[in-house]
Amino acid sequence: MSENTEHPTNLEYKGRHLDFHSKLGWEYVSRSNCTGVVGIIAMTEDHQLVLVEQFRLPLSGRVLELPAGLIGDRGDETLEQAAHRELLEETGYEADSITPLFAGPTSAGLTDEVIQLVQARGLVRNHPGGGVEGESITVHVVPVRSLGAFITDFEQAGGLVDFKVRLASHLIGDLS
Amino acid sequence: MSENTEHPTNLEYKGRHLDFHSKLGWEYVSRSNCTGVVGIIAMTEDHQLVLVEQFRLPLSGRVLELPAGLIGDRGDETLEQAAHRELLEETGYEADSITPLFAGPTSAGLTDEVIQLVQARGLVRNHPGGGVEGESITVHVVPVRSLGAFITDFEQAGGLVDFKVRLASHLIGDLS
Repeated sequence: MSENTEHPTNLEYKGRHLDFHSKLGWEYVSRSNCTGVVGIIAMTEDHQLVLVEQFRLPLSGRVLELPAGLIGDRGDETLEQAAHRELLEETGYEADSITPLFAGPTSAGLTDEVIQLVQARGLVRNHPGGGVEGESITVHVVPVRSLGAFITDFEQAGGLVDFKVRLASHLIGDLS
Repeated sequence: MSENTEHPTNLEYKGRHLDFHSKLGWEYVSRSNCTGVVGIIAMTEDHQLVLVEQFRLPLSGRVLELPAGLIGDRGDETLEQAAHRELLEETGYEADSITPLFAGPTSAGLTDEVIQLVQARGLVRNHPGGGVEGESITVHVVPVRSLGAFITDFEQAGGLVDFKVRLASHLIGDLS
């Protein structure tokens, strides 16, 4: 937008994974190690949603999320390739097809991160999942009809639930 | 969680609004100027959802969002007080009541930010809104039945839509 192109963006601090920028008094971070982020709505043939639970260090607690991951952090790959890879690594499911749904910014005030949501169809479980080195992921395969209760129980046990899990629980009725 | 309490968090860079931390190889930012963030689902008596559009500098583009803001960035205030204040500043609506719904992390891999969603009821418009100094907000009051088309049009015009707008469009049927 023309209102900002004439002003420079300053790189204030360069971390290993995140760059800290400032511009016109605003501050935000960018991921420096990927070309994008993908989140996956994966429902099994028998109407169960595949979710992941992991300890998130910034929040010092466990978070319930959609399977998700960085695109291109380990070499060139497309959105679809990253979705297949992350779904398999995190949950053990192989998908027959990946269909883009829509994208959205995660926190427009403090990062330029945008997550592309996709739908994974034709799931076949290959292994138990759990993620790659450094990740410690618990996979939950939850019947759609009991998702509300599952979310409530997870929060009552002290966990946090990503908004996109709630969004997926409403969307899956519309997805075929 | 015990698995991390024995490790120190390092403040790598301190900005004006954000702190850049590292811990065990992870990097994340924290807001240093508030006690929390509130997002507001505000529906008028005639079933229109109150949304805000603003240019978001990190994304170099316009974003459609729920009315939202920082809690306590201008002195002590409760969640409810912040919700009343932000809704009025951004949209011009005064609310009769504010009811907490649920909270969620915005991007658990890169920030400790958690947004508390609330429902605003009994709306009366007091002024046109638009935000305080430095903000340039366009208010949209959209009939619930045409939200899907509004979101599609907004994206086709090059804008980004926050996931919580989509979530709200599904939730409002359940909220009384």
